[in-house]
Amino acid sequence: MSGNTFGVIFRVTTWGESHGPAVGAVVDGCPPGLELSSDDIQGQLNRRRPGTGQGSSPRQEEDRVEILSGVYQGRTIGTPIGLLIRNREVKSSDYESLEDIFRPGHGDWTYFKKYGIWDHRGGGRASGRETAARVAAGAVARKVIARAGIEVFAYTLELGGTAVEDFSRAEIPKNRFLCPDSRAAEKMGERIKAAMVEGDSLGGVVEVRVTGCPPGLGEPVFDKMDADLAKALMSLGTVKGIEIGAGLEAARMKGSMSNDPIAPGGFMANRAGGILAGITNGEEIVIRAACKPIPSIEKEQDTIDLHGKPRRVSVGGRHDVCVIPRIIPVCEAMVCMVMADHLLRQKSIS
Amino acid sequence: MSGNTFGVIFRVTTWGESHGPAVGAVVDGCPPGLELSSDDIQGQLNRRRPGTGQGSSPRQEEDRVEILSGVYQGRTIGTPIGLLIRNREVKSSDYESLEDIFRPGHGDWTYFKKYGIWDHRGGGRASGRETAARVAAGAVARKVIARAGIEVFAYTLELGGTAVEDFSRAEIPKNRFLCPDSRAAEKMGERIKAAMVEGDSLGGVVEVRVTGCPPGLGEPVFDKMDADLAKALMSLGTVKGIEIGAGLEAARMKGSMSNDPIAPGGFMANRAGGILAGITNGEEIVIRAACKPIPSIEKEQDTIDLHGKPRRVSVGGRHDVCVIPRIIPVCEAMVCMVMADHLLRQKSIS
Amino acid sequence: MSGNTFGVIFRVTTWGESHGPAVGAVVDGCPPGLELSSDDIQGQLNRRRPGTGQGSSPRQEEDRVEILSGVYQGRTIGTPIGLLIRNREVKSSDYESLEDIFRPGHGDWTYFKKYGIWDHRGGGRASGRETAARVAAGAVARKVIARAGIEVFAYTLELGGTAVEDFSRAEIPKNRFLCPDSRAAEKMGERIKAAMVEGDSLGGVVEVRVTGCPPGLGEPVFDKMDADLAKALMSLGTVKGIEIGAGLEAARMKGSMSNDPIAPGGFMANRAGGILAGITNGEEIVIRAACKPIPSIEKEQDTIDLHGKPRRVSVGGRHDVCVIPRIIPVCEAMVCMVMADHLLRQKSIS
Amino acid sequence: MSGNTFGVIFRVTTWGESHGPAVGAVVDGCPPGLELSSDDIQGQLNRRRPGTGQGSSPRQEEDRVEILSGVYQGRTIGTPIGLLIRNREVKSSDYESLEDIFRPGHGDWTYFKKYGIWDHRGGGRASGRETAARVAAGAVARKVIARAGIEVFAYTLELGGTAVEDFSRAEIPKNRFLCPDSRAAEKMGERIKAAMVEGDSLGGVVEVRVTGCPPGLGEPVFDKMDADLAKALMSLGTVKGIEIGAGLEAARMKGSMSNDPIAPGGFMANRAGGILAGITNGEEIVIRAACKPIPSIEKEQDTIDLHGKPRRVSVGGRHDVCVIPRIIPVCEAMVCMVMADHLLRQKSIS
Repeated sequence: MSGNTFGVIFRVTTWGESHGPAVGAVVDGCPPGLELSSDDIQGQLNRRRPGTGQGSSPRQEEDRVEILSGVYQGRTIGTPIGLLIRNREVKSSDYESLEDIFRPGHGDWTYFKKYGIWDHRGGGRASGRETAARVAAGAVARKVIARAGIEVFAYTLELGGTAVEDFSRAEIPKNRFLCPDSRAAEKMGERIKAAMVEGDSLGGVVEVRVTGCPPGLGEPVFDKMDADLAKALMSLGTVKGIEIGAGLEAARMKGSMSNDPIAPGGFMANRAGGILAGITNGEEIVIRAACKPIPSIEKEQDTIDLHGKPRRVSVGGRHDVCVIPRIIPVCEAMVCMVMADHLLRQKSIS
Repeated sequence: MSGNTFGVIFRVTTWGESHGPAVGAVVDGCPPGLELSSDDIQGQLNRRRPGTGQGSSPRQEEDRVEILSGVYQGRTIGTPIGLLIRNREVKSSDYESLEDIFRPGHGDWTYFKKYGIWDHRGGGRASGRETAARVAAGAVARKVIARAGIEVFAYTLELGGTAVEDFSRAEIPKNRFLCPDSRAAEKMGERIKAAMVEGDSLGGVVEVRVTGCPPGLGEPVFDKMDADLAKALMSLGTVKGIEIGAGLEAARMKGSMSNDPIAPGGFMANRAGGILAGITNGEEIVIRAACKPIPSIEKEQDTIDLHGKPRRVSVGGRHDVCVIPRIIPVCEAMVCMVMADHLLRQKSIS
Repeated sequence: MSGNTFGVIFRVTTWGESHGPAVGAVVDGCPPGLELSSDDIQGQLNRRRPGTGQGSSPRQEEDRVEILSGVYQGRTIGTPIGLLIRNREVKSSDYESLEDIFRPGHGDWTYFKKYGIWDHRGGGRASGRETAARVAAGAVARKVIARAGIEVFAYTLELGGTAVEDFSRAEIPKNRFLCPDSRAAEKMGERIKAAMVEGDSLGGVVEVRVTGCPPGLGEPVFDKMDADLAKALMSLGTVKGIEIGAGLEAARMKGSMSNDPIAPGGFMANRAGGILAGITNGEEIVIRAACKPIPSIEKEQDTIDLHGKPRRVSVGGRHDVCVIPRIIPVCEAMVCMVMADHLLRQKSIS
Repeated sequence: MSGNTFGVIFRVTTWGESHGPAVGAVVDGCPPGLELSSDDIQGQLNRRRPGTGQGSSPRQEEDRVEILSGVYQGRTIGTPIGLLIRNREVKSSDYESLEDIFRPGHGDWTYFKKYGIWDHRGGGRASGRETAARVAAGAVARKVIARAGIEVFAYTLELGGTAVEDFSRAEIPKNRFLCPDSRAAEKMGERIKAAMVEGDSLGGVVEVRVTGCPPGLGEPVFDKMDADLAKALMSLGTVKGIEIGAGLEAARMKGSMSNDPIAPGGFMANRAGGILAGITNGEEIVIRAACKPIPSIEKEQDTIDLHGKPRRVSVGGRHDVCVIPRIIPVCEAMVCMVMADHLLRQKSIS
């Protein structure tokens, strides 16, 4: 497996399997002199920690991050930042009943075909557990871009078919779905409950916004800002669709509607989602990620085992009903990495 | 500008501005011994050539490709393949009226902010002209993957709000929209006509499919197959949304619907679009790109000029009404590059 | 700091400062199914461990490596291999007298100029301690190439002006200088003793050989095998010169002498050092690295402090007299990485 | 073949075979707003043009460079710079007698083993012809670093065993060996004559110096400035040894001699060659490349043919006797690229 490094100047390499001893990341290319403490990282990790509430996995990990290098006396020193998160509570026994079964919707089958290796212990590197390392690294990226006045935040736009109707940023941290519409959040809770009863799972849509981004970031032609953002979010196993600005709706508009008119004070609309020809235009960046339902469900499904025999499988264990809201800090982390990388890349020409 | 190279093992670097002397590409990492002629490339270039019909720009470029290196006696020799396409018919005079105006929906403003350089001659590197180099390089990638039995084809799924209702692959090459539904194609033609009359433009959706792809391609965790495909297509200035398999619809499904059950003979559905956990599963890869309307329209729009003064602009000149169908071979080219790169990457572990 | 990753397919990223909590490496791109245990790595780490004898630092680190990911049931699984080595015995007090002094011959001054950060605790990332991570990663590379029959070994060719006169491979592991000539080894020991008495240090030359390498490895034109080997060894702070095959002597030869004649059974000489036009030719690869004396010496030297004031400095503490022989497993590790990377790169075209 | 791209931010990709239609380069990552004309590049190309004098090949190429992109109104615009040099005088007939013979000292055999392709027309990509593209790209790099006050120049330090004894920079351009010692230059001329009579060839040593380089360039730990310089020069097929500063002599020094003492006004010696711990220290960078004799000689040598049969070969044709002085602008070009890349990389942290 190669492909575990992301970014050109601000480079993040992650490692670690779900049921191995630890997961972690190396952040290379972080400028020196940046204030950074393990609390900065821990705060973000806590946001993706499995809750005890509905919709979230009851697995209790502490996810304590340890900074192993790159920071001295509370500041980065320009050297690679090594981040370590031990895997605390490993119950491979939960997976014993699945010992020789390919779970539908999971990477079990494709990993087996790719590597010729069979590891039934909960998805290995395809597990959501891997995203803890992304969140840790993303916390560093967040500090880098904060220094330039760039902020990234995300929220639930849709869950189990229930979409947001009102938007209040203040509302986001107030409900457990990180949803900007409290009424929608309530309905989402009901959907989750119902799905739990059915032994089924739900999907949804996360919207990520970037504010304070200066114009001029993004590298034509292949490393466009939107191209790198799309890759960043699509690199999450759960994401099946990406939209920038007007997104799919843009395909149904006419040019006179799709084009954002320009006035002396700035753009008069933001159908472009903050990116024109792959370069930021100074408007808010708006990007959406459509997440499929969590594939681990109690409902019985058809599958095969290692010997190619047909089997029926019910995946118990400690699983979330919906990847939202836990995926939200992960989406933010990925977007922070892209922004940090392009912010630093732009410096080479200025 | 960096960011003009795509791929890890099969690497494509493009160069060239719309109104400079030429555009071109260097293809590095192509295996030796592959049959390759300029006709192979020319055939693909002809597919993206501006037509004379409705919806297409009347600009008549011949787009003759010249292979400058890497091929000897009709076969690749393992060295980089240099491809050159001269820009024949350059009418910068068409752009004189736009000399100091930022066209809405174009990269004029963002390029100016990024590079501090003003070149009004038709978009420079942000122009669709740049995609000729991609198509040329993609033709090489197509030969690489063909040897492994992989085929890539694309078609119009939607144009100006008119969506395909029937699918007939045989129909695709028969109409000028490369549309698998002849009736829909007719309606699309009408939409184009109406938009022309209005001096407006249209968007649409392209669907790309990959057949014959073996399981196991794609590199966890960041260089997932779907992540790289999303980046590849989102790197086209016109694309604002990407879907894999069930795409956005997956967000509204339950897990019991979204998961593709597995039978001894293979997957019993393909909501995953041929990719699980970022790795191909042997099913057909299905990916959609939502294209915004072409931003160059005759209808007057609000904008500003170089001095920040408000202006009204009508963009005449030789412009298409819709980027579809000319973008179709470009989408195919990008997908061919991703497939070729991952096919060769996989060899390192096998 | 970026630049902490080495290799294209077989990629090693190292992190960690001399006096921080740990050093480590992530090895990405290692093929699955390779037998690998921490003993394999520990064995190499032990070879670079500071000895108690003359010429070696009395610092006693245990250097226990922990494999944190990428290995399951004794075999690699294709995912990144996380390696952790805790820094045990940290005596920053040794450095207190140097608190505000730039040590001559060290990176103190250049790191300060680059990062604007001052960390006096023993060289941070410029310390030889960093090479422990390289040795650990190199042990993985060694397993990769062993599978293809490639072996890397190195030895002392010269130390403190005493050069090898006889070559016996069997002799190498028998003396503490890893010297293929026992008599020369004895003289080297005397040189070391004398330098210790003087409070001075010595340099020397390491020769690395690669046997069993198939022809055809190495990528023209920039990533030639010799170019990558030169970079690999020159990336060690101690190395000031590199020779391949006849090396500098080649510059004084005539072509009729420098060219290796070819016979049906192979090359009739190996002045090329196993590499022609950047590609291995199947002969033994021979490369030499000239190492400067260790810059930490007790003898007083002129320098300046943080405030630019002239100072005299005597660097006590636990320092080796000569980087040889401890650098030998490090040189081997770097060469193993290059060989592993090119071995896997070559697969993409075969 | 991959490996045809050099650099991280300032990226040069070269393409083209000796006897194909053209060679060329794409320079990506060049900052916008830099004055650049084809004359700037042509001037450097002319320096490596084969002369008519002794020691130089009588092949008369005009080597006219064409800038195909990235420059508008005499300035770079931030987009990739496409450079094209047509191969004018191609006499493949010269190589007919060598049609099935592996020339000793050349890449014929190793390319054949690597790619399984046999192209007898003068070395293809392993030919010195490829370096024309490097020189063209290097001319762009030279402009980038000139803006920061950095200058690169090189000269002959030794040729055919005759070494420079005096150094006068003013003398360098005055003799055809670009030798800083006119007497030595005379002797070199005699050596060349004698070698021609013998049908043999000579090697030598080039020294490259970089002045005006600020401290702080170079990226620990793998992408050290000296590591990248070593790779840059060792990537020339002719180079078999590299020395930085005191080079091999450093291995015979004691630490008290090898360390450069520091005074308030700067370093009191430059045994380090301007680089400490991989980072520039503000002193002049000094690097030497040992070049082997040109392998094409008239003297008969033993070799084999495509069928493995023993043969005797005398390589006639239009060949230089020594790669010096034509390699000098090539060495400079490579060093310019490294300096430009690290200059731009450093911006990301400042």
